[in-house]
Amino acid sequence: MVAEKSALPKSVAQVKVLAQPGFMPAEPRSAAEPHIWRWRDLRPEALEMGQNVHDRERRVLRLGNPSLAPRTATTNTLFAGIQVVMPGEVARAHRHTPAALRFVIESRGGYTVVNGDRVPMLPGDLVLTPNWCWHDHCNDTDEPMIWLDGLDTPLNGLLETVFYEEYPDEVQPPVDVMDKGLTRYGGRALLPRWEEHHGRHSPLMHYPCEEARSSLVRLAELAEGSPQDGVILEYTNPLTGGAVMPTIACHIQLLRPGERTAAHRHTSSTIYHVVEGRGASIVGGEELAWESHDVFCVPLWAYHEHVNTSSEPAILFSYTDAPMFKALDLFREQAHPDGRLGA
Amino acid sequence: MVAEKSALPKSVAQVKVLAQPGFMPAEPRSAAEPHIWRWRDLRPEALEMGQNVHDRERRVLRLGNPSLAPRTATTNTLFAGIQVVMPGEVARAHRHTPAALRFVIESRGGYTVVNGDRVPMLPGDLVLTPNWCWHDHCNDTDEPMIWLDGLDTPLNGLLETVFYEEYPDEVQPPVDVMDKGLTRYGGRALLPRWEEHHGRHSPLMHYPCEEARSSLVRLAELAEGSPQDGVILEYTNPLTGGAVMPTIACHIQLLRPGERTAAHRHTSSTIYHVVEGRGASIVGGEELAWESHDVFCVPLWAYHEHVNTSSEPAILFSYTDAPMFKALDLFREQAHPDGRLGA
Amino acid sequence: MVAEKSALPKSVAQVKVLAQPGFMPAEPRSAAEPHIWRWRDLRPEALEMGQNVHDRERRVLRLGNPSLAPRTATTNTLFAGIQVVMPGEVARAHRHTPAALRFVIESRGGYTVVNGDRVPMLPGDLVLTPNWCWHDHCNDTDEPMIWLDGLDTPLNGLLETVFYEEYPDEVQPPVDVMDKGLTRYGGRALLPRWEEHHGRHSPLMHYPCEEARSSLVRLAELAEGSPQDGVILEYTNPLTGGAVMPTIACHIQLLRPGERTAAHRHTSSTIYHVVEGRGASIVGGEELAWESHDVFCVPLWAYHEHVNTSSEPAILFSYTDAPMFKALDLFREQAHPDGRLGA
Amino acid sequence: MVAEKSALPKSVAQVKVLAQPGFMPAEPRSAAEPHIWRWRDLRPEALEMGQNVHDRERRVLRLGNPSLAPRTATTNTLFAGIQVVMPGEVARAHRHTPAALRFVIESRGGYTVVNGDRVPMLPGDLVLTPNWCWHDHCNDTDEPMIWLDGLDTPLNGLLETVFYEEYPDEVQPPVDVMDKGLTRYGGRALLPRWEEHHGRHSPLMHYPCEEARSSLVRLAELAEGSPQDGVILEYTNPLTGGAVMPTIACHIQLLRPGERTAAHRHTSSTIYHVVEGRGASIVGGEELAWESHDVFCVPLWAYHEHVNTSSEPAILFSYTDAPMFKALDLFREQAHPDGRLGA
Repeated sequence: MVAEKSALPKSVAQVKVLAQPGFMPAEPRSAAEPHIWRWRDLRPEALEMGQNVHDRERRVLRLGNPSLAPRTATTNTLFAGIQVVMPGEVARAHRHTPAALRFVIESRGGYTVVNGDRVPMLPGDLVLTPNWCWHDHCNDTDEPMIWLDGLDTPLNGLLETVFYEEYPDEVQPPVDVMDKGLTRYGGRALLPRWEEHHGRHSPLMHYPCEEARSSLVRLAELAEGSPQDGVILEYTNPLTGGAVMPTIACHIQLLRPGERTAAHRHTSSTIYHVVEGRGASIVGGEELAWESHDVFCVPLWAYHEHVNTSSEPAILFSYTDAPMFKALDLFREQAHPDGRLGA
Repeated sequence: MVAEKSALPKSVAQVKVLAQPGFMPAEPRSAAEPHIWRWRDLRPEALEMGQNVHDRERRVLRLGNPSLAPRTATTNTLFAGIQVVMPGEVARAHRHTPAALRFVIESRGGYTVVNGDRVPMLPGDLVLTPNWCWHDHCNDTDEPMIWLDGLDTPLNGLLETVFYEEYPDEVQPPVDVMDKGLTRYGGRALLPRWEEHHGRHSPLMHYPCEEARSSLVRLAELAEGSPQDGVILEYTNPLTGGAVMPTIACHIQLLRPGERTAAHRHTSSTIYHVVEGRGASIVGGEELAWESHDVFCVPLWAYHEHVNTSSEPAILFSYTDAPMFKALDLFREQAHPDGRLGA
Repeated sequence: MVAEKSALPKSVAQVKVLAQPGFMPAEPRSAAEPHIWRWRDLRPEALEMGQNVHDRERRVLRLGNPSLAPRTATTNTLFAGIQVVMPGEVARAHRHTPAALRFVIESRGGYTVVNGDRVPMLPGDLVLTPNWCWHDHCNDTDEPMIWLDGLDTPLNGLLETVFYEEYPDEVQPPVDVMDKGLTRYGGRALLPRWEEHHGRHSPLMHYPCEEARSSLVRLAELAEGSPQDGVILEYTNPLTGGAVMPTIACHIQLLRPGERTAAHRHTSSTIYHVVEGRGASIVGGEELAWESHDVFCVPLWAYHEHVNTSSEPAILFSYTDAPMFKALDLFREQAHPDGRLGA
Repeated sequence: MVAEKSALPKSVAQVKVLAQPGFMPAEPRSAAEPHIWRWRDLRPEALEMGQNVHDRERRVLRLGNPSLAPRTATTNTLFAGIQVVMPGEVARAHRHTPAALRFVIESRGGYTVVNGDRVPMLPGDLVLTPNWCWHDHCNDTDEPMIWLDGLDTPLNGLLETVFYEEYPDEVQPPVDVMDKGLTRYGGRALLPRWEEHHGRHSPLMHYPCEEARSSLVRLAELAEGSPQDGVILEYTNPLTGGAVMPTIACHIQLLRPGERTAAHRHTSSTIYHVVEGRGASIVGGEELAWESHDVFCVPLWAYHEHVNTSSEPAILFSYTDAPMFKALDLFREQAHPDGRLGA
C-alpha cells in the first residue's frame, strides 16, 4: 500500500513570478570565446608530460577554453586534448558514452584496439572510438605517439549522459590481422552484405591519411568547392552516407595558396587542427594566425573565415557538433552580410 | 593581407595535465532531484499572481526544481510553469527556438494563435507552439485561463541555441475560421495532399482533450498496455508517426484503479501532470503522492513506478526529452532488477 | 563433384542483332484504355450472380478492362471487382501477397476478419486486407453485402510474385470485441506505444465512412484544394504518414458543385469509384459521364480532368499504384499544356 | 458543358463471374527458365556482328531467354546483352527511363559519357547510366570494345514506363578532365559537401575493376562471407549506403577454390557474369557449368547454389531486381530445406 504519508516532500517556495520581457536574447552568444593553441607551445609541454607523468590510463593535455573554466571544454559541447603515449606504454581498455576521435600528429606506428579490431595509427590518420565501444591504445615503437583527442564530453556533461565501464583486462585480446574493419568497410562505395552492423555510428574506425589527402588534392584541381569552406570532404558512415557519429561530424579541407573563404556563422561549433600549411582565421572578430598542428576553435554563432596566407596548400582537419543541431532542428546558418571580413 | 601580428592571443597556461582514472562515473546521476508541485498550493498562488502582476507578456509561475537553482529548470532539459491569462488579457505575439507546449487546466474558452491559426483552448487540450512558430494567447472570457507551460528552455540554454523575435504587432491578425490546422491534419489517419508542410514538427497544433481521453478509456477496456506505463498513447506528428517536436514527445496514459506499474529508468527525463485521479509515484526512492493537476518530475536515470491508489481511473499527461536522446544515440533504458519498488 | 556434362544446355540461337533506332517510344502509351462500368448495369448482374452462383470462396464480378483482355486487369497493374456476399454466407479465410482493399457499397452490417480482428463493414467504409494478412468475410445480416474489391493482382502477375495460402479452418476464430485495430490505431494523431507493429502496411484496417466524409465536407469550406484533384484526402498509415500499403494508395476527394479540375497525367494509374454525386471525367480524350457507384479507370499517362456537373457535392474514392512508381523513381507527372480540356 | 451524351462508352459484357478456388498458386513459378550463354559462342558472334552490322546507335547481341520469347528479356524484369563498339565508332547520345549498367569485358580504353562526365571503360569496370541520364559511348582505340549491357527494360516494359529522348547532338561536349564523378564521390567513405546530388541513384557512375577485385581478395582472407553467396560485396550509392539504382543492385563475389554455397531462392531474379574462374551453378534443378565471361540467369523463386570447381578463385559479377521487391514489400527468401543441392 502506498501511504499518503508524504505531506509536501519539497517546498513550493521555489515557485516564482516571471516577468518575462526580454528574458530571451535575440540571438545566442556562446560563453566560449575563440581560442588558439599553438603547436610550438603544446609539443614541448606534451613531451615533458610524457616524461614526468606516469599513468596507466591516459595522459592528456586538456585544451580547455579559458572562457569556459572551470568546465573542461574547448567549445560548449566539444573537447580537444593532446594525448601522449610513450614508447612501450599502453592506455588501458575502457568504454564510455562520450564519442571520441583521434587525429594522429606524431607516430611511427602504434595502434588503437576498437571493439577487438586493431587499428594502426600513423600521422594524419583519423581513428574513431564511438559511444560505448571498447578501446585501448598501445605504442609498440621507440618514439612517443602524439595525437589530437576529440570528444563530446562537454555535451555529455551538459546532458548528464556519461556512462563509463572498465574492461575486465588491461587490454583487449591480441589479433592476428590488423585493420579488419577497414578491409570490410573501407572499399570505395563497396559494402559487405553478409553481416549486419549494429549501432548508429560508422562501422569504419579508421580513415587513413593518404586517402583523404590525395582525394583533396585531386578535387582541388577540378572543383571550386564551397565558398565558406573551400574544397571540403566529410568523413562518412559508409552505411548511410551521413556523419561518422550521431553527435560529431569530421571534415578535412584544403585551402589553395592565397584562398580566402566567405564569412559565415552557424549554431554548431567547430574545432580545427592544422594538418599542414600556414594561414589565419578571423573568428568572432579575432584574427588567429595558424601553422602546422595548431588547434583552434570556432564557437557557436561566431562569424568566421579562413585564409591561406602561404604559397603552399593548407589542409585543415575539423570536427563539429552540427549533426546534433540538425537532428534537433536547431541548426541555423547565416552568411556574413559583408561577404568577407578580412582585407 | 593577414598580418602575423597576433603573437599568442590567448595564453596556453590553460593546458593542464589530466590524470584520468575515475574521471567518469559508472553511470549518471542527475543534478535534478524528484519533486512535486501540488495544485492546492499552486492554484492560489497563480490566481494571486493574476491579480497582482501586470504584464503585457506572460505571467508564469516557474516550477523551478530547487535542486537545480539558480537555473530555471524543472529537469535538466525541461521546464514547467503555470501560466495565467486573466479575462480580457492578451499575451503578445513572439517566437523563439525553444519548443513549447500548453496543457490547459482551467478555461472557459480563450485561444492561442499559432502561425496565424486560431486554436481554442479548453481543459485537457494540448496546444503546441513549436520552435520558431509565432504565437500569442488571448482570454476573451470572463474567467482566468490557467495552463501548464512545457518548454525545452533549459536544453536550449545548455546548448546556447536561444533565438527570440517579437512580432511587429501585439497580436497576429484575426481570422474568420478557428482551428484550421485541426480540420486539415486532425482526421483519423487522413491527410490533405495538396499542400506541403515545412518543418520538422507536427503540422497539428491542437490535440483536443476529448479525443485523447475517450481513446484511452476505450483502449483500457481491451489492452493491457505497457508494464512500465499502463495504457499510454503518444500524441504524434501525423505526417511521420513520430514525436510532435524533435526535442519533446508528449504522452497521455491511464492507470486503472489499483494498477501499479513496473519500475524502470531511462536517460530521458519526464514531467508529469495529473489530469485526473489520485495515486503516487516512487521516483528515485522518494514517494510522491499526487492528485488532480499536481505536477511532478522524474529526473534522468531515476527509477520510477506509478500506482493508482484510488478506485477511479487516473490519467497522467507527460512530456519528455526522449526524442533528443534517441536522435543522439544516448537513450538507454533499464528495468529495475526487483521489478517493482512499492508494496 | 559437378561434372562438366552439360555442353550447351540451351541454344545460343536466341542471340539476335539489335538495330535499335526507335526501339523505345518517346513516351509511354498504356495498353489500357479509359473505361467506365455503370452501376445501373453492375448492380443487377451482381445480384443475379448472388442468386445463381454458389461458392464457398468469393463471388466477384471482374471489371476487366476490354482493352487488356485476356488479362484480368482494370489498369495495367490494378484490378477492380464487385464482390457479393449473400445473407448468411461466409467467404472463407485465406491470404495472399496481392494487396487488397474493399470499399463498401451496400451493407446492413456484416464484417471482415483481418488477422484475427473483426472489422465491421458499412457503406462508404474502407477496409484493408494487405499483403499476406489472413482474411475472411461474413454476412450475418438479411440483405446482400456488395462492395468494390481493389487489388494489385495484375501487378503481382506481372512481377510473378503471387503467393497464396488457405487458412486451416473455414474462418478465423470468433472474437469478443470488434474493431480492436481501430480502437488502437484510429485515434486522431494518437498512437499506442506499448506494442510494435510489424509490416510495411498500415496497422489500421478500417477507415470508417463517416470520418472521411465529414473531414472532406469541413475542408471544402476552408480550402481550395489541389487544382488537379480538388479537396482530396489520403487515407494513411498512421505510423508513417505514408500510403496505406507499399503498392497502393487510397484517396477520397470532393468536387464542389460545378467544380472542374485542371488536366494532368502521370505514370501511375487510378481506379475511381463514385461515392455520391454526378459528373464526368475526360480521360485520354474520352468523356466518361458518371453517377453514384459507377467505377472508372484512368490509365497510365492519360490526361484526365474531372467535373462535377451537378448542384450537389460529388465524392470520389480512388486507389492508385503511385507509391510503387515513386519507390522505383519512375513517377512522372505533367500538367496539360492547355490547362483544361473540357468546355 | 459536359453533355450526358455518352450512353455506355464501353460494353459491360466484360463483366464475368469469378469462381476463385485455386485461382492463385501456392507459390510463384517464373515463366523464365534458367539459361546460360557461353562466351565461346557469344564472342565470335559479337565480333561478326561488329563487322557486318553498321549502326549509329547501338549494336547489341540480345541475350533473350528462350522461355520468355517473344519478349526480349533475360529474366522477367531484367535484360542482358553484349554490346560491341568498333574502333573509331561512337554510339550516339540519348537517355531513357530504363536504368542501365555496363560491365566491361574487352577494352583497351574507350569511354562512356554520362551526363557530361567522361568515364573510362576498362575490363572489369562497372559503369552506370541510370534512369534518364544522358549517355553516349566512344571507342577511340584500335580494338573492339565489348561489354555486358544490363538493363531493366523488361520491367519498364511490364510497367509501361519507358520514356526516351535523343540528345540534340551526336555526342555530349568534350571535357578536359576524365572521371570527375569518381574523383568527387569515389573516395573511401569521403564525400564532398559543397554540392547536392539530385536523384535517387548513385552519384558515382564508375566503379573500377581493380578496387572491387582487390577488396574481394583481401576480404576472402579474413571472412567466411555469406553461406549463400560466399564473400560478396555490393556496389553502393555512397550517399545512402544503399543500392546503386532504385530498381537494380549490383554485386561482386568470390568463391574460393572448391567452395560450394548453400542453396536458397528469393523473389528477386539475378543475372550473373563470370569475371574469371570456372565452376557451376545448380539453378532450378539444372546444372549450368560456367567459365570466364559466360552469362547466366537465376529466375525468380528458383533454388540455386554455386560451386567453384577449380583450384583458382572464381569471381562473379551480378545484378538483381531485389531493391524493387524490397521497396514493394514483395521480397521473400527461403533456404533450401536440404541445405545444399549438389554432391
